[in-house]
Amino acid sequence: MPPVAAPSAIARRQATERLAALATPPGALGRLGDLAVWLAACQGQVPPTPVNDVRLVIFAGDHGVAAHGVSAFPPAITGAMVRTFLLGKAGVSALARAHDVSVRVLDLAVDEDFGDLDEQVRALLTAHKIRRGSGAIHLEDALTPEQARAALAAGARVAREEIAAGAQLLISGDMGIGNTTPAAAMVAAGLGLPAAEVVGRGTGIDDEALRHKTHVIDAALSRVGARTTDPFETLAALGSADLAASTGFLLAAAEEGTPVLLDGLMSVACALTADRFESGAAGWYAAGHRSTEPAQSLALDKMGLEPLLDLGLRLGEGSGAVAAVPVVRSAAAILRDVALLSELAP
Amino acid sequence: MPPVAAPSAIARRQATERLAALATPPGALGRLGDLAVWLAACQGQVPPTPVNDVRLVIFAGDHGVAAHGVSAFPPAITGAMVRTFLLGKAGVSALARAHDVSVRVLDLAVDEDFGDLDEQVRALLTAHKIRRGSGAIHLEDALTPEQARAALAAGARVAREEIAAGAQLLISGDMGIGNTTPAAAMVAAGLGLPAAEVVGRGTGIDDEALRHKTHVIDAALSRVGARTTDPFETLAALGSADLAASTGFLLAAAEEGTPVLLDGLMSVACALTADRFESGAAGWYAAGHRSTEPAQSLALDKMGLEPLLDLGLRLGEGSGAVAAVPVVRSAAAILRDVALLSELAP
Repeated sequence: MPPVAAPSAIARRQATERLAALATPPGALGRLGDLAVWLAACQGQVPPTPVNDVRLVIFAGDHGVAAHGVSAFPPAITGAMVRTFLLGKAGVSALARAHDVSVRVLDLAVDEDFGDLDEQVRALLTAHKIRRGSGAIHLEDALTPEQARAALAAGARVAREEIAAGAQLLISGDMGIGNTTPAAAMVAAGLGLPAAEVVGRGTGIDDEALRHKTHVIDAALSRVGARTTDPFETLAALGSADLAASTGFLLAAAEEGTPVLLDGLMSVACALTADRFESGAAGWYAAGHRSTEPAQSLALDKMGLEPLLDLGLRLGEGSGAVAAVPVVRSAAAILRDVALLSELAP
Repeated sequence: MPPVAAPSAIARRQATERLAALATPPGALGRLGDLAVWLAACQGQVPPTPVNDVRLVIFAGDHGVAAHGVSAFPPAITGAMVRTFLLGKAGVSALARAHDVSVRVLDLAVDEDFGDLDEQVRALLTAHKIRRGSGAIHLEDALTPEQARAALAAGARVAREEIAAGAQLLISGDMGIGNTTPAAAMVAAGLGLPAAEVVGRGTGIDDEALRHKTHVIDAALSRVGARTTDPFETLAALGSADLAASTGFLLAAAEEGTPVLLDGLMSVACALTADRFESGAAGWYAAGHRSTEPAQSLALDKMGLEPLLDLGLRLGEGSGAVAAVPVVRSAAAILRDVALLSELAP
């Protein structure tokens, strides 16, 4: 696909000039200054508009590998956590409420039918469902090509809906027991690295499970071979319906020119894959929080992104990005509301 | 003085138990979990109350050393920045507005009379003024004992006013060209370190000025000698009226049991001094932002505090702490609003 348009170079230059003209010592605003310039370039507007409307979409799904000893938790937790999001009682729910971020949860491939839910709630939740569970990537492709295309399209459609409804900043969140295994495999594929360099402990596996997880990722990479050089094949073979949808969501955000705050490994693995589809997509992304998963840092380095926060969160769900939303608001406020030196000079 | 009472051990234990009972993987909340426990212990309440009412008090003053080549800026900037705070157009003003933090600025020792200001504004600004400029610490004591006592008392009075008016979290900010020199000297005195280990570049001095600043701090420490073993003598000899007031403010917050979010070097040097006055005061403080000044990190290490943010800010004014206020709110929200596992279990 063609490269996406970059954020506005004109706004970037004007924002850089405004930053230098503020009544503050040179460089004293640190990363808030850089972030404000990026935001202004994304908005095409100097000073930037306050970032009031922030929207998180959580893409939920189960993963065949979860039945193969790669996670500290059983797969049934995925559906239980989806219900917790719907109740507004998860970690990210609390953070989102505290920072005025809307939350939408979508079931792309959870391995249950949610037949117990209210019909209307269930219809919204499962409107984009691709299948029940994605394939165990060390044994089979995660998705058929048709399913991968459908998941990418679903994510893109959701991004465009949220943007049309007023989103100024988007976040993609994740829920799915076992999902750090396909996400790490996607990063390994994107960066041409072996499993041992990308694997991490997820929500907390022990040394033996970590060795096993490494073998699973290595087996998946071996099985897929040279198909890893193509981002679509990477998603279909090594990803999942939820990760493909998240990738489509991030791609569409870049195409539409809406900035994104990335979260942990899943969000960043999808961002890396989006940037492989359309070079330059990463120009629309900032990194919210440093993950303890090595694959996240490796993928961020590749995209030239440095997380704003490092609070030791390893909750997933989009929580690190939501916690970082106030930093983006700080940056916008600084470039917008601080006096210019010329206004103060007598 | 006697040690201050510690934050509630009962609330700390209950908060730790609640944290462990949340429907999140063990340890997944990272530093937000620890911060929430601290906040609950300070409030004596589990779950903690949302931290809506946050108040920043900026203590402004000039410093005799500023006339001796230790700063990149001329002393007249202090008064100009005080006017910018009053206009709500400084860096910290923008951040405070973005995060709903109130700002009060007090002239403790600015080297001008503000005769041009509206009479009522001027009366509030200078109500606690101790003198015009504090002494150049390498040549003379910053303050007489009477002035040091008056400044400490003024800061304490201000803290009690803000707490009585509803403050749930306090921040002490600073403004004063040259103030990193006395603040670094206070840290050197508190930790028994030579100037070379505590000195930093402030708002951006070059190598030659840095060497000179080191000599000034060394000369001050030599001049004062063994008086550095006493915190009151440290403030009078090496500090300033604004730093003494800030110390009194932080001490009173601890005595009253109101938590404080520390900012950069000035705030942390005063916190260290407060903890020397009353052992245990630091139990009421959390650190907002990592300063590039080495003395700040040294003093935080001594108090066992780790900053929440590291955004490269070197603006002073309380800005790093104000930028970190949403992290405290995130922590409170997590411990308050996330479901307990027992609530979700069928």
